[in-house]
Amino acid sequence: MRKGSSVGTPDEPWTSFTDRRGEREEKRIAVLRTAAQAFNDMGYHATSLDDIARRLNVTKPTIYYYVKNKEEILFECVRIGLEMLDTASTEVTGHGGSAHDELVAVMTTYVGVMTMDFGMCVIRVGEEPLTGESRRTLRALKRRIDLKFRDLIERGIAEGSIAPCDSKVAAFTLAGALSWVARWYRPDGDLDAAAIARQSIALLLNGLRPRPD
Amino acid sequence: MRKGSSVGTPDEPWTSFTDRRGEREEKRIAVLRTAAQAFNDMGYHATSLDDIARRLNVTKPTIYYYVKNKEEILFECVRIGLEMLDTASTEVTGHGGSAHDELVAVMTTYVGVMTMDFGMCVIRVGEEPLTGESRRTLRALKRRIDLKFRDLIERGIAEGSIAPCDSKVAAFTLAGALSWVARWYRPDGDLDAAAIARQSIALLLNGLRPRPD
Repeated sequence: MRKGSSVGTPDEPWTSFTDRRGEREEKRIAVLRTAAQAFNDMGYHATSLDDIARRLNVTKPTIYYYVKNKEEILFECVRIGLEMLDTASTEVTGHGGSAHDELVAVMTTYVGVMTMDFGMCVIRVGEEPLTGESRRTLRALKRRIDLKFRDLIERGIAEGSIAPCDSKVAAFTLAGALSWVARWYRPDGDLDAAAIARQSIALLLNGLRPRPD
Repeated sequence: MRKGSSVGTPDEPWTSFTDRRGEREEKRIAVLRTAAQAFNDMGYHATSLDDIARRLNVTKPTIYYYVKNKEEILFECVRIGLEMLDTASTEVTGHGGSAHDELVAVMTTYVGVMTMDFGMCVIRVGEEPLTGESRRTLRALKRRIDLKFRDLIERGIAEGSIAPCDSKVAAFTLAGALSWVARWYRPDGDLDAAAIARQSIALLLNGLRPRPD
């Protein structure tokens, strides 16, 4: 998601080089995002590089200027989606809040990412069509995110802000409930991402059973 | 999942015919189950009919005696998984229990199905690789299951056994949390299906926040 820096320096040739790099990176992200949209709409296997080129209104050789092949595109889409989830949790934690409050913040961002092209691609396609090192890299990222959920839950149990439970099952239950949003969310639907996050997280925090409070 | 009837009748030729039909249906289910396992392990696109034949220790023509092609196999696997989910909810509802209790029963069976080959196939592969009528049929089945969840939640809210919430978001949140089991459950893991169901459902009922009761 990093856009190339466009901050100028007195060193002209370098500035231009940085600008060109930034522009290329920006266009590369545009290719990846369009690919993610196509994968999410039609499925990974049903999407060809021609489909992606057509959506971008460019030729296939232009696509090859930015990416090597379809596998690399999927790898990058899923990696970016997972990095967004991972960064989200890093940003909200460690500021001295309760584990409960940090978990709410992480979950809110998680739902937001699930309604975006790259996040949706993590759930609708994922690493399954990939093999070898790519697949292992993405699985390791997923595992890191899962462990952060578990840590937060365990910290919450220890400090009393979260009810005692098995942190592994709880982390998977939360991740499942929130990841599902990527399957059913429609940008033109009657519920926006913020409303979905609020309601879904309220249910996970308070439970289905009425509370006396 | 229906095994052919093997109940005898005095009418011998008919009995044999019924037996043969029962046997064929049983073998067909065995082919489908083995295919579901292969799809769940390796992915739908990476699995060939040869792989399925090899797992069954039969030849490819034997497979064609039971099914037309790979698309039909996937359709049947996902259909059976969805029918199991649908039947589960039909069986536990309408016996005069509270909506809360019926929802717990439906959710418990749901998790059980998610740990079985056909149920797992609904989530790990699903109808996405299919097209046209097959895809529409499976989507309609999914929608029916979703609406049953919503109905139960709405009934629970009306009678006071479930806390007020948006039934659509709540149904998707529950379905997501429970469907996720199909992604992470390992038959050789340290948690069995019953323990996962109990803990996951307890979290959804009681919420993450400690309760005074």
